[in-house]
Amino acid sequence: MLNLEGIFPPIPTPFDADGEIDVAALAENLDWWNRFGLSGVVVLGSNGEAVLLDEGEKLRLIEAARAGAPEDRAVIAGTSLQSTRATIALTQAAAGAGADAALVLPPSYYRGLMSDAVLERHFRAVADASRIPVLLYNMPACTGIDLSAELIVSLAAHENIVGLKDSGGDVAKLGRIHGDLGGRFRVLAGSAGFLLPALSVGAVGGVLALANIAPRQCVEILRLALTGDMHAATDLQVRMILPNTAVTRRWGVPGLKAAMEMLGLRGGPVRPPLLPLGGADRDELRSILVDARILDSDKKGGR
Amino acid sequence: MLNLEGIFPPIPTPFDADGEIDVAALAENLDWWNRFGLSGVVVLGSNGEAVLLDEGEKLRLIEAARAGAPEDRAVIAGTSLQSTRATIALTQAAAGAGADAALVLPPSYYRGLMSDAVLERHFRAVADASRIPVLLYNMPACTGIDLSAELIVSLAAHENIVGLKDSGGDVAKLGRIHGDLGGRFRVLAGSAGFLLPALSVGAVGGVLALANIAPRQCVEILRLALTGDMHAATDLQVRMILPNTAVTRRWGVPGLKAAMEMLGLRGGPVRPPLLPLGGADRDELRSILVDARILDSDKKGGR
Amino acid sequence: MLNLEGIFPPIPTPFDADGEIDVAALAENLDWWNRFGLSGVVVLGSNGEAVLLDEGEKLRLIEAARAGAPEDRAVIAGTSLQSTRATIALTQAAAGAGADAALVLPPSYYRGLMSDAVLERHFRAVADASRIPVLLYNMPACTGIDLSAELIVSLAAHENIVGLKDSGGDVAKLGRIHGDLGGRFRVLAGSAGFLLPALSVGAVGGVLALANIAPRQCVEILRLALTGDMHAATDLQVRMILPNTAVTRRWGVPGLKAAMEMLGLRGGPVRPPLLPLGGADRDELRSILVDARILDSDKKGGR
Amino acid sequence: MLNLEGIFPPIPTPFDADGEIDVAALAENLDWWNRFGLSGVVVLGSNGEAVLLDEGEKLRLIEAARAGAPEDRAVIAGTSLQSTRATIALTQAAAGAGADAALVLPPSYYRGLMSDAVLERHFRAVADASRIPVLLYNMPACTGIDLSAELIVSLAAHENIVGLKDSGGDVAKLGRIHGDLGGRFRVLAGSAGFLLPALSVGAVGGVLALANIAPRQCVEILRLALTGDMHAATDLQVRMILPNTAVTRRWGVPGLKAAMEMLGLRGGPVRPPLLPLGGADRDELRSILVDARILDSDKKGGR
Repeated sequence: MLNLEGIFPPIPTPFDADGEIDVAALAENLDWWNRFGLSGVVVLGSNGEAVLLDEGEKLRLIEAARAGAPEDRAVIAGTSLQSTRATIALTQAAAGAGADAALVLPPSYYRGLMSDAVLERHFRAVADASRIPVLLYNMPACTGIDLSAELIVSLAAHENIVGLKDSGGDVAKLGRIHGDLGGRFRVLAGSAGFLLPALSVGAVGGVLALANIAPRQCVEILRLALTGDMHAATDLQVRMILPNTAVTRRWGVPGLKAAMEMLGLRGGPVRPPLLPLGGADRDELRSILVDARILDSDKKGGR
Repeated sequence: MLNLEGIFPPIPTPFDADGEIDVAALAENLDWWNRFGLSGVVVLGSNGEAVLLDEGEKLRLIEAARAGAPEDRAVIAGTSLQSTRATIALTQAAAGAGADAALVLPPSYYRGLMSDAVLERHFRAVADASRIPVLLYNMPACTGIDLSAELIVSLAAHENIVGLKDSGGDVAKLGRIHGDLGGRFRVLAGSAGFLLPALSVGAVGGVLALANIAPRQCVEILRLALTGDMHAATDLQVRMILPNTAVTRRWGVPGLKAAMEMLGLRGGPVRPPLLPLGGADRDELRSILVDARILDSDKKGGR
Repeated sequence: MLNLEGIFPPIPTPFDADGEIDVAALAENLDWWNRFGLSGVVVLGSNGEAVLLDEGEKLRLIEAARAGAPEDRAVIAGTSLQSTRATIALTQAAAGAGADAALVLPPSYYRGLMSDAVLERHFRAVADASRIPVLLYNMPACTGIDLSAELIVSLAAHENIVGLKDSGGDVAKLGRIHGDLGGRFRVLAGSAGFLLPALSVGAVGGVLALANIAPRQCVEILRLALTGDMHAATDLQVRMILPNTAVTRRWGVPGLKAAMEMLGLRGGPVRPPLLPLGGADRDELRSILVDARILDSDKKGGR
Repeated sequence: MLNLEGIFPPIPTPFDADGEIDVAALAENLDWWNRFGLSGVVVLGSNGEAVLLDEGEKLRLIEAARAGAPEDRAVIAGTSLQSTRATIALTQAAAGAGADAALVLPPSYYRGLMSDAVLERHFRAVADASRIPVLLYNMPACTGIDLSAELIVSLAAHENIVGLKDSGGDVAKLGRIHGDLGGRFRVLAGSAGFLLPALSVGAVGGVLALANIAPRQCVEILRLALTGDMHAATDLQVRMILPNTAVTRRWGVPGLKAAMEMLGLRGGPVRPPLLPLGGADRDELRSILVDARILDSDKKGGR
């Protein structure tokens, strides 16, 4: 039984000094993430630099993630490409490589033509052809497309479309989807900046870049919300906002990988065109992490 | 002592058949709103068609609101104009007419020039000159300007700038502001679509168009949140999303006034260029209100 | 007979040291503008800080512009307000004060509700009630509304709607409007950055901020285009782009007024919230004007 | 000597009934395009559904285009991918397959991180590694990124970056680039909707979807502009705007392929997620083409 509730880090892809993927480094990171109450991992998401990888690399990363994660935790793989047929082929290959579910973005290059009807056909074709469940992935900052509530509710009628990761942050939309669909469709917050707000309108967890570097805190926000300890939940949520912005909207994957290095994890280089974080930005990032108590002030990391 | 916590309806301006303001109708509406645990009213906000009124009308409406509201409840008046000096003059006149606080939008016509530095000077000049406290009003859908967290935090240092109504809905930003400022600066949700999410990151209430037609439910969401009954709060919040969208983003003031008429309140016509809601839209609005249990299905209203 | 072809500067409003309007300064500026082959002036446009003026000031400025401009040249007055009835009243008053035509923006505060149908009713109501011809004013950067080609073509059927000032810069749209309507509807470029491109698809002139400081060059681009000397037209057009950007999108009215002062015209202060141009920006502006040969390098101005 | 002046159709990719690429159909189309005074073709652009093709398909299409085009006309290939290294590899392979120049989009998935500095490194790395000249491709409607004039001017200093295809339509920007760089950097209009306006500010031709179905007319606009016959140029330009919109912004590749079928060319199906044009849209498209005299009214096509 696939459990899609809880906290999932969308894990970065480690590269070695030659710019090639480094599955040994990934295994090390997974050992650390496995210590917290995470429900699984997302591989090949935006934070995984999926658009910068070729297909062979993608499948090796899925295999490595599946090998390094406990059996009872989900490995969710991003399998989006621009054509429907390539997305189907990659989703099938991902299932073969061990993915438990697929996370699928809307095709976005021809965004002016991507009406709800066009998107509905795409997602249904992928879900029809996939032997693993499909999660919709709404990521307007990268795709320029904001999936409508109407489309999401309509797609939820497909038995193989089981949930949504939303990084858009329109919590009223998330609440409306929960209101229409109830618990049979799992809504996951796509950013730790609005985890508690999303939970307050029916989300069951999150796929959170911040969970790569602050898994304990992300899991704790969820636990406090479920037990009704709202004051403590609010305090922790509010404390996580600045570090979350640092490793998402502000500095993106380069920021996240730099933060991982500060914590003793294997971040490593980004793949161009992405550029590594500069020195002044690193200093500012470090003090944001210290202020949020994610990193010890003696700079030896929070592990 | 001015209390800025709780729920405030941003009240519509009733017009008579000749299109002139109708203070008697306003008094009737106030009698109804006074029965619920609202903390006051906002007059001359976006829902009050403030930009369609002249200065004389504005002052008469403030006087009428002050006369019709209980003494211990706040009358907050929108006093925004495009020039700093006209905003100051209207704020002073509003105070003279009985307003307890002023709600001030950023000037937005020259939005390309409205840097944080320019906006900071404007808001500080207004706050310096005003003898009543100032609330910042962030309303990107109408102004095209989204006040930054940095600007808001900086302005909160002014002793006469006491809070924020935010209609933008970026709850991570609201959480960050609360994190920086704590309880000494009051954050109010600007739409019932994200009331509970905003409360979960430190907001103390809301200025909610929906509170004009569903005051009991809006007050109840706040009460449930404060008492930690999150399941019930989530259920009620989620149920209010569709009717809220109907009277805000979708149909705006014409939708809100039509809904008020359905409930037996004095909605009346809108002022052109706004157009009244058409018949098919009215039917759809009615069933949204019934489905949300704001309007009885026998169509006699919820009063 | 009102001539709406040619070049019109949208003239700034001079303020004195106390921030009050200075009609004597305006008269001086008009004396200078009258020396070039301009077809008239636009008063109370975006460059006239119209949204920062009260009604009395507006009427005095129209009177002053009419008094200072030659009889055979048009005085076009911006008369936009947010409500239909206030726009009508101001348009009538403007006609009484001597305006030959009115330039009318779409109401924009409730932009989410401003469908083509709503805007069509507004513009028709204003045109019906106005005894002077109406020009549509498309200014998306300030209003957040981009008038559609379909709406403009439909409104052109009204006998009192005679043209369009377009500051949006979508020249394919301008060409389509000219294709549908031909010469009976006058399209005016709203920025000198695309004057020649607009002329190439049927525009008959422009309302150009740059014409305040470079009237000779703007008139010359039009003359070269009409005589088919495209190489010279292209050269002059291209040379005007950077100074035009400087006094429009980049530094706006503060930049335009600073440039006027450099040329010996009466620019004077801007009205808050606008801030005057800072020293470093002034230096950069000066060298842009010198490079474009609008200002003599000995800094004594081009008058 | 590579000639990058004149008109280039960005050719669609024909698919057969099984959805596979059909190089025989492409050869037929090329035979027709070769009859007009076109300067070459662009293969694998947005209209070529490049993002929906795999690498093997791309190389076969370049080979087919090179084989079917006259030797003295350029075959320009789109070689953009999201990672720098994959873009370099595809550009090298394209050169090997016969491409005379490469057309390169900015990587856009991580658009929030794509500062001018990041984009400059990407484009320079590609240009350094490429043995064929590179054209920059600005296509904000698909990428969400609008290349700045400053970045383009800076990149033009690279000896292997020889020009720009701009589909954004900001002709003031194009004029500024021409003003800074003059004739040593070739600016090509990216849409027939603003071909003549672009020529009026220094462009030397265009890469025009419309040139696939109206090559004679596109070439004629350029000829009329070069000979200074502006009245005739304006008339023809204006007549081409509606059909151009039909096969670009409005109906995109499905519209372009449908129009090609109407003209007797080999359009064929689109690849999903794109959907073929519906029947009512086809009827409207047909009458737009007839009205613009691209298609004979007896519906036998304009060939």
